[in-house]
Amino acid sequence: MSRPQDRGDRGGDRSGDRGRGQNLVAPRPAAKDTLRVVALGGIGEIGRNMTVYEYNGRLLVLDCGVLFPEDAQPGVDLILPDLRLVEDRIDDIDAVVITHGHEDHIGALPWLLRLRRDLPVIGARFSLALIAAKCREHRITPNLQVVTEGERRRVGDWDLEFFAVNHSIPDALAVGIRTPAGTVLHTGDIKLDQLPLDGRLTDLGGFSRLGDEGVDLFLVDSTNAEVPGFVSPEREIGPVLDGFIASARQRVIVASFASHVHRVQQMLDAAEKHGRKVAFVGRSMVRNMQIAQELGLLTVPDGLVRSLDKVLELPPHQVLLISTGSQGEPLSALSRMSRGEHRNVALTEGDTVILASSMIPGNETSVFTVINELSRLGVTVVHQGSAKVHVSGHASAGELLYLYNAVRPRNVIPVHGEWRHLRAQSKLAVLTGVPQDRVVLAPNGTVVDLSGGRARIAGHVDVGMVYVDGNAVGDVGENTLSDRLILGEGGFIAITVAIDGHTGRAVASPTLSGRGFSDDPKALSAVVPLVEAELAQLEADGITDTHRVAQAVRKVVGKWVGETYRRRPMIVPTVLAV
Amino acid sequence: MSRPQDRGDRGGDRSGDRGRGQNLVAPRPAAKDTLRVVALGGIGEIGRNMTVYEYNGRLLVLDCGVLFPEDAQPGVDLILPDLRLVEDRIDDIDAVVITHGHEDHIGALPWLLRLRRDLPVIGARFSLALIAAKCREHRITPNLQVVTEGERRRVGDWDLEFFAVNHSIPDALAVGIRTPAGTVLHTGDIKLDQLPLDGRLTDLGGFSRLGDEGVDLFLVDSTNAEVPGFVSPEREIGPVLDGFIASARQRVIVASFASHVHRVQQMLDAAEKHGRKVAFVGRSMVRNMQIAQELGLLTVPDGLVRSLDKVLELPPHQVLLISTGSQGEPLSALSRMSRGEHRNVALTEGDTVILASSMIPGNETSVFTVINELSRLGVTVVHQGSAKVHVSGHASAGELLYLYNAVRPRNVIPVHGEWRHLRAQSKLAVLTGVPQDRVVLAPNGTVVDLSGGRARIAGHVDVGMVYVDGNAVGDVGENTLSDRLILGEGGFIAITVAIDGHTGRAVASPTLSGRGFSDDPKALSAVVPLVEAELAQLEADGITDTHRVAQAVRKVVGKWVGETYRRRPMIVPTVLAV
Repeated sequence: MSRPQDRGDRGGDRSGDRGRGQNLVAPRPAAKDTLRVVALGGIGEIGRNMTVYEYNGRLLVLDCGVLFPEDAQPGVDLILPDLRLVEDRIDDIDAVVITHGHEDHIGALPWLLRLRRDLPVIGARFSLALIAAKCREHRITPNLQVVTEGERRRVGDWDLEFFAVNHSIPDALAVGIRTPAGTVLHTGDIKLDQLPLDGRLTDLGGFSRLGDEGVDLFLVDSTNAEVPGFVSPEREIGPVLDGFIASARQRVIVASFASHVHRVQQMLDAAEKHGRKVAFVGRSMVRNMQIAQELGLLTVPDGLVRSLDKVLELPPHQVLLISTGSQGEPLSALSRMSRGEHRNVALTEGDTVILASSMIPGNETSVFTVINELSRLGVTVVHQGSAKVHVSGHASAGELLYLYNAVRPRNVIPVHGEWRHLRAQSKLAVLTGVPQDRVVLAPNGTVVDLSGGRARIAGHVDVGMVYVDGNAVGDVGENTLSDRLILGEGGFIAITVAIDGHTGRAVASPTLSGRGFSDDPKALSAVVPLVEAELAQLEADGITDTHRVAQAVRKVVGKWVGETYRRRPMIVPTVLAV
Repeated sequence: MSRPQDRGDRGGDRSGDRGRGQNLVAPRPAAKDTLRVVALGGIGEIGRNMTVYEYNGRLLVLDCGVLFPEDAQPGVDLILPDLRLVEDRIDDIDAVVITHGHEDHIGALPWLLRLRRDLPVIGARFSLALIAAKCREHRITPNLQVVTEGERRRVGDWDLEFFAVNHSIPDALAVGIRTPAGTVLHTGDIKLDQLPLDGRLTDLGGFSRLGDEGVDLFLVDSTNAEVPGFVSPEREIGPVLDGFIASARQRVIVASFASHVHRVQQMLDAAEKHGRKVAFVGRSMVRNMQIAQELGLLTVPDGLVRSLDKVLELPPHQVLLISTGSQGEPLSALSRMSRGEHRNVALTEGDTVILASSMIPGNETSVFTVINELSRLGVTVVHQGSAKVHVSGHASAGELLYLYNAVRPRNVIPVHGEWRHLRAQSKLAVLTGVPQDRVVLAPNGTVVDLSGGRARIAGHVDVGMVYVDGNAVGDVGENTLSDRLILGEGGFIAITVAIDGHTGRAVASPTLSGRGFSDDPKALSAVVPLVEAELAQLEADGITDTHRVAQAVRKVVGKWVGETYRRRPMIVPTVLAV
């Protein structure tokens, strides 16, 4: 079934005729001593995070991620931020600053770098290593500049400071941006695990110090703003995984996000403790864990991790597979295993699968399909709904209150969230003393100007949805998606007619065929005489224009199918004049 | 995006050539003194509950519901149990017994009754009233026979006893079935609210008495078998609703399931207490509440409920709307309100919407779309994720243990669940002492024979998915759905070619057009010369067979589009010989 799409900031630029040079400027260029902020993605949606800062004619880009499509965007592989808005000003960009290496923060970088290959990309080690790997696949050599938490760095006129934050990936950073027009703190994705596995705490002290100095504008992660309380420490997951691995008598497969190094570390520790050898399954898992190991972020005892072939030679109780596919992706190794279609791994009754992951909204059906298939096989399935095998990477409301009280911002823009999250974030800001009119709800394309310590909406620019489908970008737009939704619901009926271009006489019987309409081969036979009668009438009326004939035929067939079937397939007439 | 479908019991009967007379019989007819049980729906899925009992050549049908389609069944309105399996034996059916009035238990009745209009339909008052209303819409006058809890009734050779159970609808029943081959207890949908609003407790004492007598086979609701603990009493919802309604300063809209009379009663009580007038919104809500009121199940103080027009004339703080649309259905009143498209109701900042309902799996995206749209408008949205405004109608694991201990069944068939639920139910049965080999996992079509106090799988019959699309049943099958999925993902490219039937010479330029493929009008222009070259080659080779020409053209276009775009639209060639 099709679902209504999240409209408004999804309507986007359908005309494609936006004048060049209008970028980020509506209704007028930023005044001197004004810091301008425009999100090209990530506000009003979860994904494709990209925020553009402008001061004194120069730009700073923060993050450049992708959005994964919903049901209303069928066939689309990825959605990019609307890079057309910076295309004309690509040489004004001083740098792209990356908060962390998740796809919704780095995934669109290759498309930005194609516009200018030498753009400096600034970020922490692990983030840049993931970007380097991604760019290799796109045959781009990026200009990477490593920073670490605690560091302060000048980039053009931008005075940047980097703060450690914890999240569900190593090396995440928040970014302080000092400009003569005011100071910004942008959290990126953040939580406040007070017992992080690597000891790398979110730098609340640093935030507090910046707050003492004065934070004029606070852009803060809203993903879990609706959720009361606090996220449990990541280290509470380890003993739960350990318990399941300890009691399993056969193979154990744990599926997890491929960049969640600390989660994987806990699995490796449990494997070693219980005499299991480990294989990584899934391209991104293999790649990321190798990078993490090289950077010293993952500790792998000698001989613990082996190739899948080698591990599968061991007795079942010595096997632990760490796999991607936690979102039920149909082509993932885990999905294939659940359907009994994996080339190497045939799961059997008594095996254990642990989904140490959340269900990203929209993926519930896919994930439950995998769980049901595994259950059918007799596999014991453990998931977030049945055991504490996952904690979120985003601060809940309780943690967000700590942030507000440390930062004491003068103005707030909730980021990284759908409208429900932005509203919840707004309430938290107000509870901690931010005046309601200083909380700026600024969905993608909203131009916010900070001057005199006050953030105000200065206008809007159109932010479109830029779809990647196959290897082409941008040619799939709302018309194509709308057609796909119609075709996906009701299929189509094609009618082909050949007429004599001079007389309008039909020179062959009309051909009718439906696809996605009915399994009944005779479903359309009753309408053929109606089409023939219409053609005869058109000929009698002397109508030879193929377009008019096509319209008439469409009308006859559409009316008939509506009355006969109460369905609305696409009706596609083709009239050839020969 | 398409999702993999829940395979296996969804593959269904694709051939359509099942021999008549094979119904319920594989591998052989039930032996004398054997009670046969076959589910035609509801096991291995949630929905279209229908179980057929056979004893001594006679049949008893329990429930006859519909299943709502998933993403893998695009365009489908409803899915019916495979009624073809009882079609040949329609006169052997002694009665249809209905446990309660939810769509997944009664929705397919009209299609069953079309096979035999005088089939006795046995159920409680409210269930039958809903069936009568449904049948009126289908212009069927059903043969309804009311029973009440505590009643014992002989129907043919079936010795039936009805037990009160509570659920999220009034008048739900469990059914005891005594036959010479053994005694069955079928719970229907059940929970064990120990403080039900209407005082109508689940008859645990009755179950215990039947257990004393000996229950050979227990068919038990598995929906929440994975969920530990106990469902909170329904009456805990009332004060929460009351609190939100008391503190709201403007309009309040509560969305709920249209048959949840007790939930609605709590809303009416709160409305009266706080000086608000009520309008019911949504066809099924209006209809069901009228029925409930007529049957004395809903108490409506004089003048409290008015027409929507009248209520909207009142000041906002005196308005409470009780609405359908809690699942985000795009055409529902609530969805229209969220998009600002409702004819009468324009919601504004400060209004309150309460979703007093669960999210049915698969509906998450739709529901969150509505919540986000409302949040964008500034409406305060309360939902299950943010406040206790819903409790489930199905027993959690803790309650199920009470059931097992009361009934002490000799054999168990978990019903009303996907595989993950069936497995969880199986574990609970074993925990309470049912031997593992007496827990029969019997997905749709599994033939289970009970004899000598022992239930065993005796074979399988093919149970197909019967799709209702528009006003036709059964002509949409797996081929059509597969085509819809392909079309919905990638659209199609139609190529029309007219050739001289004798020479193979193209008599007009080939016409190419894509729908759902690209917004770029020139997307296909580069392939036209390739098609023309292919046609010239075919003519040179003397090939005039339209089928072979079509195949060749399809290949050329398919290869080109794969290499150029990395996409896989459907390629639809039409070749006319003129």
